[in-house]
Amino acid sequence: MTTEQRPSPDALLIVGSMAFDDLDLPSGAARDVVGGSATYAAVAASLYAPARIVAVVGEDFPADTLTMLGSRGVDCEGVERAQGKTFRWAGRYAANLASRETLDTQLNVFADFRPKLPEHYRDSKIVLLGNIHPTLQLEVLAQTRSPKLVVADTMNFWISGERKTLLQMLSKVDALVVNDEELRQLAEDHNLKRAARTVLGMGPKLLIVKRGDAGAMLFDGDGTFFAPAYPLESEMDPTGAGDTFAGAILGFLSRAPRIDHAAWRQALLVGATVASFCVEGVGNSALVELTHAKLAARLRELHGLLTVDA
Amino acid sequence: MTTEQRPSPDALLIVGSMAFDDLDLPSGAARDVVGGSATYAAVAASLYAPARIVAVVGEDFPADTLTMLGSRGVDCEGVERAQGKTFRWAGRYAANLASRETLDTQLNVFADFRPKLPEHYRDSKIVLLGNIHPTLQLEVLAQTRSPKLVVADTMNFWISGERKTLLQMLSKVDALVVNDEELRQLAEDHNLKRAARTVLGMGPKLLIVKRGDAGAMLFDGDGTFFAPAYPLESEMDPTGAGDTFAGAILGFLSRAPRIDHAAWRQALLVGATVASFCVEGVGNSALVELTHAKLAARLRELHGLLTVDA
Repeated sequence: MTTEQRPSPDALLIVGSMAFDDLDLPSGAARDVVGGSATYAAVAASLYAPARIVAVVGEDFPADTLTMLGSRGVDCEGVERAQGKTFRWAGRYAANLASRETLDTQLNVFADFRPKLPEHYRDSKIVLLGNIHPTLQLEVLAQTRSPKLVVADTMNFWISGERKTLLQMLSKVDALVVNDEELRQLAEDHNLKRAARTVLGMGPKLLIVKRGDAGAMLFDGDGTFFAPAYPLESEMDPTGAGDTFAGAILGFLSRAPRIDHAAWRQALLVGATVASFCVEGVGNSALVELTHAKLAARLRELHGLLTVDA
Repeated sequence: MTTEQRPSPDALLIVGSMAFDDLDLPSGAARDVVGGSATYAAVAASLYAPARIVAVVGEDFPADTLTMLGSRGVDCEGVERAQGKTFRWAGRYAANLASRETLDTQLNVFADFRPKLPEHYRDSKIVLLGNIHPTLQLEVLAQTRSPKLVVADTMNFWISGERKTLLQMLSKVDALVVNDEELRQLAEDHNLKRAARTVLGMGPKLLIVKRGDAGAMLFDGDGTFFAPAYPLESEMDPTGAGDTFAGAILGFLSRAPRIDHAAWRQALLVGATVASFCVEGVGNSALVELTHAKLAARLRELHGLLTVDA
């Protein structure tokens, strides 16, 4: 649970978006919130290990954020600053935060993004292909030399619109992280267990299914694991929780002595715990304040939820 | 896990409905399916301990069902056969079985039902107040002498229409079993954890929240436990799964040496497992065929879903 778990973590590469989000939350509107899958994942991963980001930002992206990431040991050399505006997403959440609708998406500098890995990124051992166009995910993967673990995220937009490229990408990754609706859509089957088997036949040896406040499931060839969500009383903003979950999992695994069944299961609980803090603040505000002491205490509580002989 | 767990189980009293269900299922229509909360709960409980039923049926109710219950050790002396037709419910399930709508409800003999406990029922130590009018639940409770555990179920209809009587009933029970939507409605709060605290303030010392294929949660003063649903590939009919869950829990607890935290947690896993079999057949067809060997094997699988150091 501490960063002393292993003297030298495996280098972790994260590709994804860095963005401004305009959020209509039950607690009110929040504008120009720094977000993006790579930002959330890197902040989460940096609780365990320094990560390297590949992403693009516009001229309007705050230097403060890059400074914050740097202070957490995140390598931002692969963050390209392009002419124009940063990627922007606007969404509105339901009163119970259980669903949201996209109000607006402005690709801006993301439209022409071709990820280019700095030379020292290429030997990264663990790679998180955050939710971006599967072609870009493949381009990142092609620039790596010999990663030992590649995990991909994706979304409904690519599943429906870029299925062929997505399947090509899936054939090259070790694990996929999706939510239950994305899984059903990808497998074209409403039954989660059957859908999981179908997706495991597409390439990934391991599948993580996010189910919001109903927790997450891990499917592999040998079995299934269930990680409950930490029951929160003070949800503020679920934006980035899934990216936080994935980033924390890979940060944890980059420190694990062995990436075996037990490590994956523990990683899911860590991911669920770190994600629960993310949801307690708008944007990454609660996440960046998270200490190892608070994380360890909540992780113990989550373990308690799974303990039969209490 | 076996009926040898304890030489003499606590007597378990179940009050609820016995019914005919007309089901529109994705697999087709099924008419005159024997159902009702008491039927499902008693079949499930009888895996562990003989139960006693208080209910009413009409002249059209099949003697076969009472014979089947009797052969499982269920005491049906408290099942009143009244003039007229048995209670009937008709419902239609969505293609993914995740939701259903009521098409028709015919109370029939249930309209004038006043539960009357046979004398030897009055000393029952464990009481399951199945989902019926809270006034009837109170009448049953008033006829018992000194139960050591009283568990109630209810539904949205009573929460909205009979709130005052329901609250009176809640003040007299040890535990409540509801689904997540009923909990939210009862507490008037969309947040499950806060809602749970509110409901625990209404009387019950313990609250079990059913969340369908997302599992079940146990809330008490000291903590929370999460029981995942067994991931099925062959769901047929969720009718009665909640009653099966409750019946199996109380059957298991009636055999438990002590009804403590660990027993409740184990009971939830047992309930989830037995309920998973219920869903695999139309009506109680799969449930009545369930053997202890099959139950034990699936229960081990469910434990595996919770095991971190696999």
